[in-house]
Amino acid sequence: MARPTFDKLCAHARETALLQSVAELLGWDERTKMPPAAGPYRAEQITYLSSLAHRRHTDPQLGDWLDELAASDLASDPHSDAGATIRQMRREYEKLTKLPQTLVEELTRASVLGQQAWVEARKNDDFATFAPILERIVNLKRQQAEAIGYADCPYDALLDDFEPGETTKNVAGVLEGLRSELVPLVAAIAESSRKPNLDILKRRYPIDAQESFGKQAATAIGFEFNRGRLDVTHHPFCAGMGPDDCRLTTRYDERFFPSGFFSILHEAGHGIYDQGLRSDQYGLPPGTYVSLGIHESQSRMWENMVGRSVAFWRHFFPLAQQAFPKALGDTQVEDFCFAVNDVRPSLIRVEADEATYNLHIIIRFELEQALINDGLAIKDLPAAWNQKYRDYLDIEPPTDADGVLQDVHWSAALIGYFPTYALGNLYAAQFYAQAAKDVGPLDEQFERGEFASLLGWLREKIHRQGQCYSARELVETVTGQPLSHDWLIAYLREKYTSYYDLS
Amino acid sequence: MARPTFDKLCAHARETALLQSVAELLGWDERTKMPPAAGPYRAEQITYLSSLAHRRHTDPQLGDWLDELAASDLASDPHSDAGATIRQMRREYEKLTKLPQTLVEELTRASVLGQQAWVEARKNDDFATFAPILERIVNLKRQQAEAIGYADCPYDALLDDFEPGETTKNVAGVLEGLRSELVPLVAAIAESSRKPNLDILKRRYPIDAQESFGKQAATAIGFEFNRGRLDVTHHPFCAGMGPDDCRLTTRYDERFFPSGFFSILHEAGHGIYDQGLRSDQYGLPPGTYVSLGIHESQSRMWENMVGRSVAFWRHFFPLAQQAFPKALGDTQVEDFCFAVNDVRPSLIRVEADEATYNLHIIIRFELEQALINDGLAIKDLPAAWNQKYRDYLDIEPPTDADGVLQDVHWSAALIGYFPTYALGNLYAAQFYAQAAKDVGPLDEQFERGEFASLLGWLREKIHRQGQCYSARELVETVTGQPLSHDWLIAYLREKYTSYYDLS
Repeated sequence: MARPTFDKLCAHARETALLQSVAELLGWDERTKMPPAAGPYRAEQITYLSSLAHRRHTDPQLGDWLDELAASDLASDPHSDAGATIRQMRREYEKLTKLPQTLVEELTRASVLGQQAWVEARKNDDFATFAPILERIVNLKRQQAEAIGYADCPYDALLDDFEPGETTKNVAGVLEGLRSELVPLVAAIAESSRKPNLDILKRRYPIDAQESFGKQAATAIGFEFNRGRLDVTHHPFCAGMGPDDCRLTTRYDERFFPSGFFSILHEAGHGIYDQGLRSDQYGLPPGTYVSLGIHESQSRMWENMVGRSVAFWRHFFPLAQQAFPKALGDTQVEDFCFAVNDVRPSLIRVEADEATYNLHIIIRFELEQALINDGLAIKDLPAAWNQKYRDYLDIEPPTDADGVLQDVHWSAALIGYFPTYALGNLYAAQFYAQAAKDVGPLDEQFERGEFASLLGWLREKIHRQGQCYSARELVETVTGQPLSHDWLIAYLREKYTSYYDLS
Repeated sequence: MARPTFDKLCAHARETALLQSVAELLGWDERTKMPPAAGPYRAEQITYLSSLAHRRHTDPQLGDWLDELAASDLASDPHSDAGATIRQMRREYEKLTKLPQTLVEELTRASVLGQQAWVEARKNDDFATFAPILERIVNLKRQQAEAIGYADCPYDALLDDFEPGETTKNVAGVLEGLRSELVPLVAAIAESSRKPNLDILKRRYPIDAQESFGKQAATAIGFEFNRGRLDVTHHPFCAGMGPDDCRLTTRYDERFFPSGFFSILHEAGHGIYDQGLRSDQYGLPPGTYVSLGIHESQSRMWENMVGRSVAFWRHFFPLAQQAFPKALGDTQVEDFCFAVNDVRPSLIRVEADEATYNLHIIIRFELEQALINDGLAIKDLPAAWNQKYRDYLDIEPPTDADGVLQDVHWSAALIGYFPTYALGNLYAAQFYAQAAKDVGPLDEQFERGEFASLLGWLREKIHRQGQCYSARELVETVTGQPLSHDWLIAYLREKYTSYYDLS
């Protein structure tokens, strides 16, 4: 008797996915193609579809079906398609129905006002005018945490929105280990007398050639352009709007090669995950990405572990020389690789290198906990921010605009999101070490322009698992070990020891 | 008591418009940007939104509200915003609720199969394999006419889908008058010894320059690019997806200037109408175009009456010479104008000139009536088609592919649509003559690159009227005369008498 109910549950979810996929297209179009004046009506369109989807997500009929299915055979194996579907849909249903409608609306409104205030505040380097709305947002997020409930601390409930099933304590432990090793490593690099020649990257790289070279590389690593496309935006992103429709964006700087190219590789990494999900399970948990951290692990792996490796460029550098003969004709591949692996402390997260990036995240993660769990006052936030930049990166933000005001996330009520960026780097290193063990040596394959072994491994071990395992379970199942900072530190240490001649 | 009900009616319609506008974006994206493999899921997305919209359009609640409002003061003036809203929504509600659900589904299915069969049949010049599905479609359209009801003949009910309130008898009378004067005019032109030099149009016109020149012209006549955009497709079209989001497409042929340019002007004409509708009434009858024929009158007026006039090119030809110095540097404006006004009988409707185009339409209109009203057998359709091409255009289609199979419309169950193209030309000529009387002389303004008087006149007289008048009422209100072929014939005769030196 459970099967017909389960089928109804799945049909319901697939219809909701139709609405959400259309909302994704509306968002993509808004950021890439929409005429400037069309913004207000576009907001109405998106709001309307979101309200239809929300109504479906909290449909009491779902609750009845899920109650019936909870005790059925279909739910008995939590890692089976049916088991994962029932478990994840119940999780989502319970979470969404716990939130009072008024709180949802207040959060939406505060996030819209927050982003508007943030744009102005950042432009004018004026934290004081942003403080009241940020305070309101933090209060609402605390209310959200209380409504949802948590085991250990309120931040658990917020983190769970982005990294389901993960705990503050566990993440804090791993990131603390990472920080304690990363700070001295970054300091040692800063003291090294060896520095790359960054001028290589600042020559003239014609945009057309950047686009075709970037698409060539994205195709080579596994992004399928018959199921996707690439456009230009100010902030690169990847959006999926159907099982065979995944769209990447990048930005090009004619005078800085890495900006466009590594954004393409990064977003293609997200897209390859999206394209590797099971089409037949689209809109259902077994066909849905497991967490933001795991998603980020895929983009970071292709961007950094693959795309900044010497092996990758042994294959691609001659092609780059053909694409950019004036810029790269007389450059050595080793000099180019050193330049794209430059490490130096900087103020802005989104421009940070592979090593220091994690410190930017750790700072935000620690401050978010202080705000949500420990009652850090908003007025004390800028000073706390600046102190951590001195402690961890040995730099001093000269303004709030390039300090505490640099990111949009908090103004958009996204608290608990930042740690997933660092988790992505940690997962990536741990997965990559395992892949090298299982199907390596990878470097030799990359030098021949072959990426199919790594891609196949990711497809099987990660992409096709969907949400059948939580992120934490997935890491343990795939690598046989719990999440740890050891792999990322080992990877970074090995890479930079040779570039920077560290002891 | 009627006002709150009316407000609910309007809110309901505005929500339905949100769904429909999103479906428009899905269709635009499918034809311009969507990755090739995404088609099947896109069809699911569009079908789902259409079903949601259809459910809203036939919501019994609407019927109750409309019953209540029918007798209210708000409905007393049929040309007021409220009166038009109640009248048009009742019209649509009654029509849609008269159609049995099974017939709607069968028509949808037959139209999908019909278009697939048509693509193959046209490719293989094989009418016989297309005949069975066309027969099925014609039968279903007859059933549709019976379900809807009609005063005079079944074709009335089908025509009403595209030109609401118009009758077969009235259209047949006007088009018969047009045909009787057009056939000898076209024959006289064919016999003239004067011919333009068409080679002018077949020189090399770089695509980039075509795009920027086309946008320059579209902007000059009144299309607002901050509320719209221009892309490339195989079949040009114009799609509105919100009060401030209207998108044009064209196709460029580097070796044939008119293809891209006049498609831009044509679609911009549609777009200018769309942009001239009242934003505050978006989704309601006073903010909706009145009929396909009136829509086509706007595109045809800007494309032909304005865009092929000598006055227009006295302003734009020097700019064209700058944009295409190699192609046009040593050409005279008179020779260029004669070339873009070439008239000669041809096989294919979509490539036909301004004069013969109407004969292509009259042939289809007559055959549609024969199929729907008079029981013309499908097997006899190709012979009837070829006979009419001999009679009206003095040419003989060598194949069915370039004859009866050339258009997609019938395969898509669009019967009753064709006459709106000729009505568009007739309305355009009649409106244009009136505009010249009211705000002319227009030629002098065009020569100075000024189009604001004509645009303003169209905005006030046509665009901002929405559906407050039917197309027929609009023509009479604006021009003081019922629709007649006199203006179109007078316009064509005057133009071609000088080009072709007719007596």
